[in-house]
Amino acid sequence: MERPIAKNVIDGVLAKMDISDISRATIRQCVAVANKLEELENMHFIHLEIGVPGILACPAGIEAQKKALDSNIAHEYPPIGGIPVLKQNASRFLKAFADVDIDPECIVPTVGSMQASMNLILECSQLDPKKDTILYINPGFAPNMLQAKVQGIKTEAFDIYDYRAEKLRGKLEEYMSKGNIAAVLYSNPNNPAWICLSEDELKTIGELATKYDVVVLEDLAYFCMDFRQDLSKPGVPPFQPTVSKYTDNYVIMMSSSKIFSYAGERIGVACFSPKLFYREYPALRKRYGIGRMGDNFILTYLYVASSGVSHSVQYAYAALLGGAAEGKIDFISEMAKYGQRAHRSKEIFERHGFHIVYDKDLERKVGDGFFYTMGYGNMSCSELMFDLVRCGITAITLNTTGSSQNGIRACVSRLSSDEDFIQLDKRLGMFEDIQKEKTA
Amino acid sequence: MERPIAKNVIDGVLAKMDISDISRATIRQCVAVANKLEELENMHFIHLEIGVPGILACPAGIEAQKKALDSNIAHEYPPIGGIPVLKQNASRFLKAFADVDIDPECIVPTVGSMQASMNLILECSQLDPKKDTILYINPGFAPNMLQAKVQGIKTEAFDIYDYRAEKLRGKLEEYMSKGNIAAVLYSNPNNPAWICLSEDELKTIGELATKYDVVVLEDLAYFCMDFRQDLSKPGVPPFQPTVSKYTDNYVIMMSSSKIFSYAGERIGVACFSPKLFYREYPALRKRYGIGRMGDNFILTYLYVASSGVSHSVQYAYAALLGGAAEGKIDFISEMAKYGQRAHRSKEIFERHGFHIVYDKDLERKVGDGFFYTMGYGNMSCSELMFDLVRCGITAITLNTTGSSQNGIRACVSRLSSDEDFIQLDKRLGMFEDIQKEKTA
Repeated sequence: MERPIAKNVIDGVLAKMDISDISRATIRQCVAVANKLEELENMHFIHLEIGVPGILACPAGIEAQKKALDSNIAHEYPPIGGIPVLKQNASRFLKAFADVDIDPECIVPTVGSMQASMNLILECSQLDPKKDTILYINPGFAPNMLQAKVQGIKTEAFDIYDYRAEKLRGKLEEYMSKGNIAAVLYSNPNNPAWICLSEDELKTIGELATKYDVVVLEDLAYFCMDFRQDLSKPGVPPFQPTVSKYTDNYVIMMSSSKIFSYAGERIGVACFSPKLFYREYPALRKRYGIGRMGDNFILTYLYVASSGVSHSVQYAYAALLGGAAEGKIDFISEMAKYGQRAHRSKEIFERHGFHIVYDKDLERKVGDGFFYTMGYGNMSCSELMFDLVRCGITAITLNTTGSSQNGIRACVSRLSSDEDFIQLDKRLGMFEDIQKEKTA
Repeated sequence: MERPIAKNVIDGVLAKMDISDISRATIRQCVAVANKLEELENMHFIHLEIGVPGILACPAGIEAQKKALDSNIAHEYPPIGGIPVLKQNASRFLKAFADVDIDPECIVPTVGSMQASMNLILECSQLDPKKDTILYINPGFAPNMLQAKVQGIKTEAFDIYDYRAEKLRGKLEEYMSKGNIAAVLYSNPNNPAWICLSEDELKTIGELATKYDVVVLEDLAYFCMDFRQDLSKPGVPPFQPTVSKYTDNYVIMMSSSKIFSYAGERIGVACFSPKLFYREYPALRKRYGIGRMGDNFILTYLYVASSGVSHSVQYAYAALLGGAAEGKIDFISEMAKYGQRAHRSKEIFERHGFHIVYDKDLERKVGDGFFYTMGYGNMSCSELMFDLVRCGITAITLNTTGSSQNGIRACVSRLSSDEDFIQLDKRLGMFEDIQKEKTA
């Protein structure tokens, strides 16, 4: 593109799509706006909005899935609790890369981590009549917040920006001490900011979860993707940090979408602390005639949600987790490509006057990974997003992630060719020109 | 087996599994009880409880799925609204076998019909603040009732046994006229009773749905499986009866599990009346910023439930529906095996003094299909089930299906070999002996 898209063209598209404020658009709406403008203006956008894996699915998964299909499993309902080999391999994988011991029985496949969080939020809200609220440590993945809204479940949330390190304890305690928090949810590495909680921060979360009997829902979608250290050797430290070291009140959600680029087939696992899995809750027994958290997750919630996960896909995920645990699949070096793309594109943004919003993990610079956050001076989310769209760049705004900072989230998954980076540079130059004109 | 299992052995197993009344056991619990007794008594049960397809998956589905996996779709998020070829083929299939016109846009894949009903029940309950209750025409599929309970949604229900033909109108109007019914749900052919609603009954439901602005959720899991007439010719009458002929307020749910024996891979489609799909609901717009029922189903409910259906499985279902619509896959004659098994096993039950509970569709005898219902004199659900278990037969009781009749549901899917029928005969003889002893 040679010049920015005219404002009135964008306004027209937004009006037609019933979007009153571009900073409130969901990811899927951002995609649709870009697609429409690409058509109208006959050009290509730089898509930084959606986290589609930009790497092909791990071949060992495809092979295992095809083999399963050939062995006559497509007609048989899958066990809702998961096929044994998947449960076993997920357990071995967690031991190898996070040094966590979880009995295979306590690991349950879900239709993506999306289905895990949806049903865990619901189940947690029904464990104890006094505890009816989900606490989100933001910024976070917007659909996780929508899940509570759809299900009519109360929420609380805060932006961690001002509450890192020792400040986290007081902030969490402010909420948890009220006694109404059923669960606390966060992602680590963080979507959208790629910040990584320190062991001390995880310890704080774990201790308070135990103290106030709150379930920690830990989303490890970007498992081992903090590339600042080498997490790639099974059974060898350092390991993926996790709250499970510090409390028995946890469920880890681990998606296949990013680490094995298996997003299309929709599978993840919910890995319960054995203590939680086998724990009896009187409110559940009263409501469903089944008392244990794990039994209900399988026989009540997942049963009516989808009656389990595609049988053949379970075999694929089992092969991927098993291969990685045995050191035969090096998923981390494959993922490290994302880190390289982040490094290169961040440098371009910074050269054009942008700054990283969530820039540090305590003393350390935030790592290069799947996402990063960018701001431009004090520009509001809305204005920043609008001007980027004028230059043929889409992203999502930080306010949609529960952040109170100004800025955008950029996802590097679809930046792959050299030409993509050249175009990014050129268009951010155009963005700077627009800003200069404004102040001229 | 030579003699009935001792009562105290069964009592012990039930107590250990925390089941206080065998007539309240869910399908999955019945399976577990039978498995445990098989182990303890070293014998095989006749499994009439669970509707596992007893026929292998349709090969065209497997081929298409493997081909899709080979063409690099596993890493890409599937469109939540469905891949175009699936939407188009489902539309053609419905036209060919039910003579219904539904625009492909209005057809959306779900992770089994289970996910469709789960989310449709939820969405319907949020369409209009005055309409907060789901009405079930029972007997029905127990998990559909559990779906409302899990989501905290109000329900009403009645047993259709005494309300066939012209009596249905008054009964439905009794509920609908109160103004709080959001949706009415039933299956046709019926699970568990295999009764089929007449065109007049469907017309009544459709007219009242229009009159009271109620959404009809029509579960066609056993599509074209009323073998009393030849529904196997695409584009040629007679067609699968459906309420869509009589109202614009419908959503048809059509599972791949039974008609193509694809239960393991978890896929179905929700087929919206175009009028409903594009209809704007102020309550939805207020809550989600999106107003249309169809857009919300995709972008709100399914997005947070699982972000769509496994990409490769969508290709499988597309091939199956397309092949059937073109007359290349004769799914109905394949399914007719179930009818033959029902015919043969019903005769054995009747010879041993049992009677069919839901025995007629108005004047016609109920057809031979996937399920049937059996009673024995006035024996209660609980006693009947217990004595059948003593003889190594499991089923599910009618009271778990919302029926107020005494009896059981038998599913023929796992009756396949001649030996199965010989054993059934022998064990029902044993059952009769137990009854004679009681009265002796």
